[in-house]
Amino acid sequence: MSSPLRPTVAIAFHSSNGHTAALAEAVARGAAEAGAEVVSVTVDTITDAQWAQLDAADAIIFGSPTYMGTASAAFHAFAEAGSKRYISRTWSDKYAAGFTISGGLSGDKSSTLGYFVTLAAQHGMHWISLGQLPGFGDANSESQPNRLGYYVGAGSQSRYDAGADAIPKSDIVTAERLGARVTEQAAIYIAGRAALAS
Amino acid sequence: MSSPLRPTVAIAFHSSNGHTAALAEAVARGAAEAGAEVVSVTVDTITDAQWAQLDAADAIIFGSPTYMGTASAAFHAFAEAGSKRYISRTWSDKYAAGFTISGGLSGDKSSTLGYFVTLAAQHGMHWISLGQLPGFGDANSESQPNRLGYYVGAGSQSRYDAGADAIPKSDIVTAERLGARVTEQAAIYIAGRAALAS
Amino acid sequence: MSSPLRPTVAIAFHSSNGHTAALAEAVARGAAEAGAEVVSVTVDTITDAQWAQLDAADAIIFGSPTYMGTASAAFHAFAEAGSKRYISRTWSDKYAAGFTISGGLSGDKSSTLGYFVTLAAQHGMHWISLGQLPGFGDANSESQPNRLGYYVGAGSQSRYDAGADAIPKSDIVTAERLGARVTEQAAIYIAGRAALAS
Amino acid sequence: MSSPLRPTVAIAFHSSNGHTAALAEAVARGAAEAGAEVVSVTVDTITDAQWAQLDAADAIIFGSPTYMGTASAAFHAFAEAGSKRYISRTWSDKYAAGFTISGGLSGDKSSTLGYFVTLAAQHGMHWISLGQLPGFGDANSESQPNRLGYYVGAGSQSRYDAGADAIPKSDIVTAERLGARVTEQAAIYIAGRAALAS
Repeated sequence: MSSPLRPTVAIAFHSSNGHTAALAEAVARGAAEAGAEVVSVTVDTITDAQWAQLDAADAIIFGSPTYMGTASAAFHAFAEAGSKRYISRTWSDKYAAGFTISGGLSGDKSSTLGYFVTLAAQHGMHWISLGQLPGFGDANSESQPNRLGYYVGAGSQSRYDAGADAIPKSDIVTAERLGARVTEQAAIYIAGRAALAS
Repeated sequence: MSSPLRPTVAIAFHSSNGHTAALAEAVARGAAEAGAEVVSVTVDTITDAQWAQLDAADAIIFGSPTYMGTASAAFHAFAEAGSKRYISRTWSDKYAAGFTISGGLSGDKSSTLGYFVTLAAQHGMHWISLGQLPGFGDANSESQPNRLGYYVGAGSQSRYDAGADAIPKSDIVTAERLGARVTEQAAIYIAGRAALAS
Repeated sequence: MSSPLRPTVAIAFHSSNGHTAALAEAVARGAAEAGAEVVSVTVDTITDAQWAQLDAADAIIFGSPTYMGTASAAFHAFAEAGSKRYISRTWSDKYAAGFTISGGLSGDKSSTLGYFVTLAAQHGMHWISLGQLPGFGDANSESQPNRLGYYVGAGSQSRYDAGADAIPKSDIVTAERLGARVTEQAAIYIAGRAALAS
Repeated sequence: MSSPLRPTVAIAFHSSNGHTAALAEAVARGAAEAGAEVVSVTVDTITDAQWAQLDAADAIIFGSPTYMGTASAAFHAFAEAGSKRYISRTWSDKYAAGFTISGGLSGDKSSTLGYFVTLAAQHGMHWISLGQLPGFGDANSESQPNRLGYYVGAGSQSRYDAGADAIPKSDIVTAERLGARVTEQAAIYIAGRAALAS
């Protein structure tokens, strides 16, 4: 249960070989440092209790690898199972955001992020953009987040045959900042709801 | 100048023959009734003073007809001129939403709404979804908003050779509710900012 | 095995409750009448032999309901399993097209069709557009195909609680014509390959 | 006037400061080397004679910088002026393809390419995908085309403050190959039409 000024930020993600999980950890770290109560849910093993955690969250950040031009089939199975929440409008007015990773620099990650926006809109959620200008220079510099130049959400790139620790530092920092941003924005929103209710 | 609890909602739209203008009026009406101070800007004749009004708004709702699968060229010229605001991050964290109309039921209106989302994300804005389940039945019934079943924003359809008063009532109500929704959500957000600043 | 002038057109689709299957039958009918050898594959029960049929086809037409703003999870599982063909470029230069159905008039069917385009492009396939101007008037008139006004592919709409026989005739004719169009275009392409090889 | 086996490939592009023009030259070079009769049209100064050249082409390749998440306003003005061809179906069944460039690695180039697909579909054109697997390694290596990992079309990236000669060689080769691919595919198609007509 979140206090009015401490938003609950849920991260609902699928990771096949650890890359997306590494980004999810970075998002969680950024959110926690910004003051969020963080809930992390791996969507391919989601339980009823975890569905309830998503229902109670102030924001849900979607994460998935980009496979064949969209989120993974496991993520889509989760989203399809979420159709009951669509009908009951359970997630309406929550904040939403997203992140994805692929083996190519583009790799159609934009399609996955665009799909997350569509999914969020079907639920009546509000989409929090990445909010970072593109970084340039060394991909492993922590001072250059958003090296890939995304706007709708966070994009990361790493070779499939490399381990998750090969993800460039720029991408990790980008994910941390996304977690922080969603937290900060959700904190404003829930403070507003509390103020208007009082 | 908006008081903390009365959001300023700007509508930045292009209308060629009156259809989009009729929707913009409906959005404005819904926003005003929900308590917004409304600013309407026709983007093909925008002045420096109106750019400043957009800069000062809490939310900007984009509107355009869908021509050849995207917003009108006049709207794109406005968006391109807005690149200075992109660099200065002037519109960052504002709320954004959108509406469009075309002659066909689909007519690729989804592409225009998706473009609005992308534009908003480039500015670091937050996207407010339509938040209405699809309506069914008579297109001219006021009790069935969102007859076209959009989620990202408001879509309307009317024959090109018909006047703006031929726009179905369902679409007008949908636009009114979008204006109201953006206002209500922006009111929460600015109340939160005020609460956290105090 | 197709003769040079008789294209093999495969339809790879998922249907949950019969609506998409009814459209797939219409696509097949239109393709057969235009001279195609038609292969229909339900992707959730696809066999190795059927994968080989897709590999041998001149064109593959993708079909799925639109659930939560994209193709069904079952379709996505099929597409993900197709990643081996992506690596081997087995489907490169085949023709591709798509169709989808949802309960709402829009229902984000455009997102599903856009996803099909992205999937096809990942495979290096060529996308055949719907090629029909929007129809107007009675949805059940056979003389008004493409009542929904799509361009990228065929879109259909029917209430979820109605049977597949409630799909409007306009949508059925639209699907038939898509099957015919893909066949005609593929016939030109394979005739050209034969001519250049001789 | 093209002979049946020598396709006419038109490049319709807008360039503001030379970057897109450099890519257009690469596309033209690749097309010419593959046997095309090439027509290059700068869409912001298009003449009636050039519109007629586009009407007579077997394929039209669209090119534009990506500004604020879509093609430039000048390109959109061209596309909007092309609506007469939409009504007359003049471009129906032509081949289409596209390329774009932006200052960021992603920079929402996918949105521009997706818009090109939508525009082509409105005209009833067939979309030729890039058909290149992602390259890895040195961006300036000619042996690693498609370093950015696009599929729908060709994407390039170069700093805005650098001249057009700073565009990485990988991107130039990618554009050349796109021109060659469209030519090769169009040659097959027009050979097929000739074979079926004889």
